[in-house]
Amino acid sequence: MTIEPNKLPCSYFTEKIPLLLENGTSIDELTVAYESYGKLNKNKSNAIIVCHALSGDQFLASKNPITNKDGWWNRMVGCGKPVDTDKYFIICANVLGGCTGSTGPTSLDPKTNKEYGLDFPMITVSDMVNAQLRLINHLGIEKLLSVIGGSMGGMQVLEWAASYPEKLFSAIPIATSSRHTAQNIAFHELGRQAIMADPEWNGGDYIKLGTRPSKGLSIARMTAHVTYLSEASLTKKFGRRLQDKDEISFGFDADFQIESYLRHQGLTFVDRFDANSYLYITRAMDYFDLEKTHNKSLTEIFEKTKTKFLLASFTGDWLYPPSESLIIVRALSAGGVDVSFVNIESDKGHDAFLLDEPEFDNAMRGFLESVSKEVNL
Amino acid sequence: MTIEPNKLPCSYFTEKIPLLLENGTSIDELTVAYESYGKLNKNKSNAIIVCHALSGDQFLASKNPITNKDGWWNRMVGCGKPVDTDKYFIICANVLGGCTGSTGPTSLDPKTNKEYGLDFPMITVSDMVNAQLRLINHLGIEKLLSVIGGSMGGMQVLEWAASYPEKLFSAIPIATSSRHTAQNIAFHELGRQAIMADPEWNGGDYIKLGTRPSKGLSIARMTAHVTYLSEASLTKKFGRRLQDKDEISFGFDADFQIESYLRHQGLTFVDRFDANSYLYITRAMDYFDLEKTHNKSLTEIFEKTKTKFLLASFTGDWLYPPSESLIIVRALSAGGVDVSFVNIESDKGHDAFLLDEPEFDNAMRGFLESVSKEVNL
Repeated sequence: MTIEPNKLPCSYFTEKIPLLLENGTSIDELTVAYESYGKLNKNKSNAIIVCHALSGDQFLASKNPITNKDGWWNRMVGCGKPVDTDKYFIICANVLGGCTGSTGPTSLDPKTNKEYGLDFPMITVSDMVNAQLRLINHLGIEKLLSVIGGSMGGMQVLEWAASYPEKLFSAIPIATSSRHTAQNIAFHELGRQAIMADPEWNGGDYIKLGTRPSKGLSIARMTAHVTYLSEASLTKKFGRRLQDKDEISFGFDADFQIESYLRHQGLTFVDRFDANSYLYITRAMDYFDLEKTHNKSLTEIFEKTKTKFLLASFTGDWLYPPSESLIIVRALSAGGVDVSFVNIESDKGHDAFLLDEPEFDNAMRGFLESVSKEVNL
Repeated sequence: MTIEPNKLPCSYFTEKIPLLLENGTSIDELTVAYESYGKLNKNKSNAIIVCHALSGDQFLASKNPITNKDGWWNRMVGCGKPVDTDKYFIICANVLGGCTGSTGPTSLDPKTNKEYGLDFPMITVSDMVNAQLRLINHLGIEKLLSVIGGSMGGMQVLEWAASYPEKLFSAIPIATSSRHTAQNIAFHELGRQAIMADPEWNGGDYIKLGTRPSKGLSIARMTAHVTYLSEASLTKKFGRRLQDKDEISFGFDADFQIESYLRHQGLTFVDRFDANSYLYITRAMDYFDLEKTHNKSLTEIFEKTKTKFLLASFTGDWLYPPSESLIIVRALSAGGVDVSFVNIESDKGHDAFLLDEPEFDNAMRGFLESVSKEVNL
């Protein structure tokens, strides 16, 4: 892919008022690339933001123009689906630091008129949320019916609820955590090292120099992908089955289906993602620590908030295990917050929230319907 | 490190009788580099082989001349220790395919008088065991008191017991599996891809070309290392603690202790290990599938064997979890084999077998003492 920000077919919001960042610097020209689905009602009470995960984008429920594949949450969002486009106005924005149209390391730095590369400021999850807030202000939405997101999307949901409770009727953090664990940081660090070890990364200046750190980015994606699946799902899906052969080759080719699958995942990812964006976004996730950012305990952060919560976790998710969701649920309960929690029995791993899990769909549908009734939708 | 096979201070056994390999080719000149501890008794009934794991070597209980560190199992093997050098004659040999003296990709190919590199034949766990068999034949040992090993060492133990039951009084496979799972293969594949993506790997010809794929090998080691530790041990050891700073740097330096630790692990590994050896040995592990190699069920393989087994697993080991050991224990029991099994409560991860676990030490000591009595040691 040649990523051309501001050229992908979607909506854009641009503002030249500096966005102050958590690290003390600012972004002087902010662009947010987004997609929306459904219709905003007259009193603007049916708006939902869906926040995407590390490798996601704004193409939530519409064809992705880069891959030509269906939107990444097509099964959850659409006409008659749990997040129903007939009832709700659903916005999905590419995160700040991303590479599909929102301001990020591939954008032009207004100071130099060249791509930022590593001159892009370090952004955090709270900066991502502040960029989204600019967008909903621009759209004239006073209060969101819900903010929904899984994995890094869930971190954004928590940050929304922590910083702007008055802006949300409800919040749905899925398969996420209130802070990145050492193991999570470790896996991200492996990916970053793989990217930065690729000589074509060129200290982050690869766009200017016309190179592409595809091998490094591909290994980063392969590493992440292994963590998204459970041992059980890998065994069920691949086991020790061989790829297009009856006997092992006694060599280093992809003998096993799992090898072939991972290589494919790596290769296709580099066609749709930017290596520096991967560095920045993984770093933002590593830095995510709600208690530290807000300098309060989780219970204190959310105490007496009127935002209603639904949390969901999946038993086979070892990257963001149910125990991480439980920490949040307990803090919310202790703070007197209205919280529902579903822990879905699933062997699909972290990716379960993107896959066919009817019990999860039902929980989403039911919760959104109940919130809708309360606001007289 | 410049690895100079046959120059490290240890014992060497060399034989010019071709060693036939599982892939149908052969190694015409076999060298096995080994260390031994204790004294072989008169009737040669007190010999134990300890098989090392992926990144191990023959320096089991003596100073490693490359790293100047204590032997890798110093705490288990020694005078008065569970594997007691006052009582037993303990042999530890560098595996075939290794890089500390035994024939491997860094050895000279007698056909060309140049380093093998990728011309080294693909070896398997059963080839490793056959090389060890040559060594004990050379030492005049008819029957081993025990074969002990953790992780890949445990695979060698299982292969010893499957192929040469008459050569073993007992067998101790620790934290291992009878076949590599899809998840295990996946993690190895990440490491191999990182090595092969390093331009200094040069298609495996780096020694001839005077380059060193240190970055790739370092990332491979970092990846493996994360899998050796449990989430609980990472949290306990590192959590989100910062390295030599009070605040995050908003950059890509190693802010977190876990990052700094992993980088250190990667950097020190390349000083003692060869990248091609890493490729060959991980591949041998991936290919390990006892039932497939022997074309029988596990129960049939071990049915009525007189070898006594002790299996050990660790609750916090997610790479070779207790369930994998249980599969073997059940097959042995079904086959009427004398088997003991200890599942040690530990949050240390896969590495637990190398660390301070007194309950495990006691099980090892007790089992070896009981076997010793039976053979009138």
